Amino acid sequence: MSEEDRDLYERSGFRGRLTPGARPAVLVVDFSCGFTDEACPLGSDMTAEVEKTRTLLDRARDKGIPILFTSIAYEGSLKDGGVWLQKVPTLGELKVGSRWVEIDPRLGRRDEEVVIYKRGASAFFGTHLASQLAAEKVDTVIVTSATTSGCIRASVVDSLQCGYPTFVVRECVADRARGPHEANLFDMDSKYAEVVGLEEVVAYVDGLVAPAMTAAST
Amino acid sequence: MSEEDRDLYERSGFRGRLTPGARPAVLVVDFSCGFTDEACPLGSDMTAEVEKTRTLLDRARDKGIPILFTSIAYEGSLKDGGVWLQKVPTLGELKVGSRWVEIDPRLGRRDEEVVIYKRGASAFFGTHLASQLAAEKVDTVIVTSATTSGCIRASVVDSLQCGYPTFVVRECVADRARGPHEANLFDMDSKYAEVVGLEEVVAYVDGLVAPAMTAAST
Amino acid sequence: MSEEDRDLYERSGFRGRLTPGARPAVLVVDFSCGFTDEACPLGSDMTAEVEKTRTLLDRARDKGIPILFTSIAYEGSLKDGGVWLQKVPTLGELKVGSRWVEIDPRLGRRDEEVVIYKRGASAFFGTHLASQLAAEKVDTVIVTSATTSGCIRASVVDSLQCGYPTFVVRECVADRARGPHEANLFDMDSKYAEVVGLEEVVAYVDGLVAPAMTAAST
Amino acid sequence: MSEEDRDLYERSGFRGRLTPGARPAVLVVDFSCGFTDEACPLGSDMTAEVEKTRTLLDRARDKGIPILFTSIAYEGSLKDGGVWLQKVPTLGELKVGSRWVEIDPRLGRRDEEVVIYKRGASAFFGTHLASQLAAEKVDTVIVTSATTSGCIRASVVDSLQCGYPTFVVRECVADRARGPHEANLFDMDSKYAEVVGLEEVVAYVDGLVAPAMTAAST
Repeated sequence: MSEEDRDLYERSGFRGRLTPGARPAVLVVDFSCGFTDEACPLGSDMTAEVEKTRTLLDRARDKGIPILFTSIAYEGSLKDGGVWLQKVPTLGELKVGSRWVEIDPRLGRRDEEVVIYKRGASAFFGTHLASQLAAEKVDTVIVTSATTSGCIRASVVDSLQCGYPTFVVRECVADRARGPHEANLFDMDSKYAEVVGLEEVVAYVDGLVAPAMTAAST
Repeated sequence: MSEEDRDLYERSGFRGRLTPGARPAVLVVDFSCGFTDEACPLGSDMTAEVEKTRTLLDRARDKGIPILFTSIAYEGSLKDGGVWLQKVPTLGELKVGSRWVEIDPRLGRRDEEVVIYKRGASAFFGTHLASQLAAEKVDTVIVTSATTSGCIRASVVDSLQCGYPTFVVRECVADRARGPHEANLFDMDSKYAEVVGLEEVVAYVDGLVAPAMTAAST
Repeated sequence: MSEEDRDLYERSGFRGRLTPGARPAVLVVDFSCGFTDEACPLGSDMTAEVEKTRTLLDRARDKGIPILFTSIAYEGSLKDGGVWLQKVPTLGELKVGSRWVEIDPRLGRRDEEVVIYKRGASAFFGTHLASQLAAEKVDTVIVTSATTSGCIRASVVDSLQCGYPTFVVRECVADRARGPHEANLFDMDSKYAEVVGLEEVVAYVDGLVAPAMTAAST
Repeated sequence: MSEEDRDLYERSGFRGRLTPGARPAVLVVDFSCGFTDEACPLGSDMTAEVEKTRTLLDRARDKGIPILFTSIAYEGSLKDGGVWLQKVPTLGELKVGSRWVEIDPRLGRRDEEVVIYKRGASAFFGTHLASQLAAEKVDTVIVTSATTSGCIRASVVDSLQCGYPTFVVRECVADRARGPHEANLFDMDSKYAEVVGLEEVVAYVDGLVAPAMTAAST
């Protein structure tokens, strides 16, 4: 970004700071095999980010923090694919019942961790995610996974719009291409969320009082 | 974008093509004075894009195509500003009743053209826009205005998710900074919409059958 | 309803008339086995309404009109049941993979007919139904199934709010109890929809031009 | 309701109990002059319910509990009236700037109490209400005002669907007609909310710890 653009952003008053609350949830967006396995046309090697996300999830599990997964999945007929399938036809690989819609097993998903199947980019759009967060009395959303320039960006904007201070974990979000990855981290950090390091997030999670957490998710 | 990234996008199957329908609407996102007047901290000089948008609107008016405006506006107390105001405090300038929330007069808004006041980035989020489009039997959304890396991006993703083939008019969308402008046009064109030239859109609008249009908006 | 109440309704200007369009969809709400089979605690004998709905569906299939089913379904953990499960614990019977969430086979669902799994009362709430209707260019919603005082009422209010003229087919909606059934038909007919007879709806469907229909659902 | 129907409800497992949390909000639905003043075609005498609501609001104000108002309001052109205006043409009286959309002054609304202008029946549909509740960390919704068989019913169903234990205050909800009023209280109490007495709600509010409340609405 140019010096001039940076000055403009300064003048516009962007880059305020969000404060995390006492009841976060971790949102794991689209770390399904279709995105994390290179054998799928939509996939790329996201091993590093998958492993870092697993690290965060295990710490969250220790504290009883709600963890929610999303996965894009269409009916076999693809009749529920809407206009997005016309724009990105390869999304049609993501059919209910196929391996591509399964959550990457390296994340160790537990049965009580909700999976939200979606048909659009945002984890919130046309899903029960916002209701789920309210029912669990969540007040903060920590976002991980894929892809930074696609479903992460869309989900982060919605998370903020839904009323949640939102945190994107830099080491835990992946993209198939470097340019869009960086450009979207910049946009999100400027206007919609805090882009933070894994170490900082883990320290925050470790510092939470566990019982308050588990009470929230009953 | 690097050669390698471009290959990745090719392989991922992005850049399918959307087809416009017979009943478009023109969505004018946040061309309120707060964004188009440099006297407001959020504003910048968008004269060229305002004038190009006016050109498109006049052609749309000739055909009776629905035109919808949005404007960000908060109550005087700012109590409805949610988390976004914490991230971008200058948005607090956009108060109901102030000049900054008025639609830029150069667009010649008519009384029957709906204005949707919103509190988030997307024109669809927490508003009646989707219902309005359905009630008017719209099947295609043409997006203009500001800012490319903010409310345009968020609105375009939602427009696609809502089921509408979506078209962004290159000469009619503005941003305060060049880098984010281009990066977001790239993302939108790759995954969510068609970024098209004004000339192409005007030709499409001119070719529509007017009576079908006006019937739709009764 | 008392004479006096009826006068009040007259004065309030209720009971305007909605006009159906050229591209209807049929929405079959919660005719899953859990509601139509008395062996389920939530079920009751809805044979008459199931058969009448089948009659309508077959006519709609002849014309290529989109048909959409909904079914309430929760994860095995019931963690996605929200507050509704606290209010109506028997809903916990409706688990993914169980027979209770399957669409009643007497309706002859075809593979290309979309099924929307939901967790709330309304077919629209937290689902992709509105997007699906927009993507298929639907302009009219015909509602059938169960229960009149529950998910039908909630879905009908949302259908209207989403911008669709909405029609409830009297012989095709069922409830476990007579009083709430009639009370909700009254409310819907007064304020949100037209309650119409099956014969009238079949005549409307038969009169539609089929090719326009199929074009819409491509 | 017949003995038989009541047995059916028992068997269906309705009438579970919801538990209020520590951070309620009071939602005042459509107590605008258009509904509370008999001079408006949509209005009726709701003096008793207005006064009881005022009692509750003053206690809530003492505790710093968030209070949110809604009002139905359309643009002068009525172009944003959607399909509902076709069904209930008298709603067209409720124009922005007219006295009918103002909150009844007997409720003593304060500047910092948010007003949500809506175009549909539900306080949540197409509005920022859900985001507002999340941003204020609300975990319980107390519903009052008008009309029981219309906007209260629609708002209560959505409040539950949004993830909030929901409480309807019997003495504070009004309807122009007795039959629909009672029928809808029955439905809501059976399936979606707790219908509770004002005395019970006031005792609950008085028992809340004030500082926790005010912290939530910062």
